[in-house]
Amino acid sequence: MTFDTRRKREYHDITDEVAAVAARAGIAEGMVLVSAMHITSGVWINDHEDGLIADIDVWLESLAPYRDDYRHHDTGETNGDAHLKNLLVGHQVIVPITAGRLDLGPWQRVYYAEFDGQRKKRVLLKAMGE
Amino acid sequence: MTFDTRRKREYHDITDEVAAVAARAGIAEGMVLVSAMHITSGVWINDHEDGLIADIDVWLESLAPYRDDYRHHDTGETNGDAHLKNLLVGHQVIVPITAGRLDLGPWQRVYYAEFDGQRKKRVLLKAMGE
Amino acid sequence: MTFDTRRKREYHDITDEVAAVAARAGIAEGMVLVSAMHITSGVWINDHEDGLIADIDVWLESLAPYRDDYRHHDTGETNGDAHLKNLLVGHQVIVPITAGRLDLGPWQRVYYAEFDGQRKKRVLLKAMGE
Repeated sequence: MTFDTRRKREYHDITDEVAAVAARAGIAEGMVLVSAMHITSGVWINDHEDGLIADIDVWLESLAPYRDDYRHHDTGETNGDAHLKNLLVGHQVIVPITAGRLDLGPWQRVYYAEFDGQRKKRVLLKAMGE
Repeated sequence: MTFDTRRKREYHDITDEVAAVAARAGIAEGMVLVSAMHITSGVWINDHEDGLIADIDVWLESLAPYRDDYRHHDTGETNGDAHLKNLLVGHQVIVPITAGRLDLGPWQRVYYAEFDGQRKKRVLLKAMGE
Repeated sequence: MTFDTRRKREYHDITDEVAAVAARAGIAEGMVLVSAMHITSGVWINDHEDGLIADIDVWLESLAPYRDDYRHHDTGETNGDAHLKNLLVGHQVIVPITAGRLDLGPWQRVYYAEFDGQRKKRVLLKAMGE
């Protein structure tokens, strides 16, 4: 699964894509691993509600802010904050599959969070089970 | 597995319940996925020590505090902080099973953390392996 | 896998060891669970770049600082901060295996983070799949 983001930070609900992979795999009992292949992205399960997404964006910036003076920037990069945001929320989740369907709670949606966009990014979706 | 919490925030050691699920599944080598089905709860592995639990509670409130003015509250909810606490600590862990038993370190205990209690909550326990 | 760290906090790239376990297991499609068996250690996937590691170390100390007055220290321990750092970054990751190799993005490396060193520590590496 590939992303081409226009902005620096973006948040995408990818639950339907995860469900499609689970259905194609024909797994009755098992799981789907949803794992960003980048170190400046996050994957989480939370609510699909625009106000909350705005709160999360502000909160992430407060705990892992953009700064000029990260040591990592001596390499020429400017995305030190994106690495820290990735560590804060994690880059992967497991979605259980039960009776052939994603076994999610009523408000649980799978999100891909881009912290250093405007580059091509990939998320690995891997179904396991029987 | 279902919780009915009396207080807003509560912390429960659920290691014995996880072990019972692993035993019932009769799995020799594999894992148990322990995953909250809510977006205002956490699941982690850490020490069963009351002082530490108190420290964690204070720490979570300092990094993801209750506030009146979260955008999410425009929906009528008041639990924005609980969503952020969930993102901070995560909502799932994998407990490995080796030789038919949970393969945990000496001080590792599985915890369910309720951040928005006084509602019925569920934790999914799913054993996989052979 | 065992660690004997000389300093209080240390960060080790263990990707090659994870790859070796996957190769020995002879798994074509599956995953390796990389899970610290301690509650004062972290495991993550991020960049192998010394400046970034220094940034992460400073950042973790700012969000989960050493303090004298943690309640946990009433037990005689002095490592309350290490427990909180563990909760912040997590203690386990799943590395997918595809076509017999670790399926990592170009900059993804598996790290073991020691937050309370100068003791013997263990990381569990468990391959699953077929």
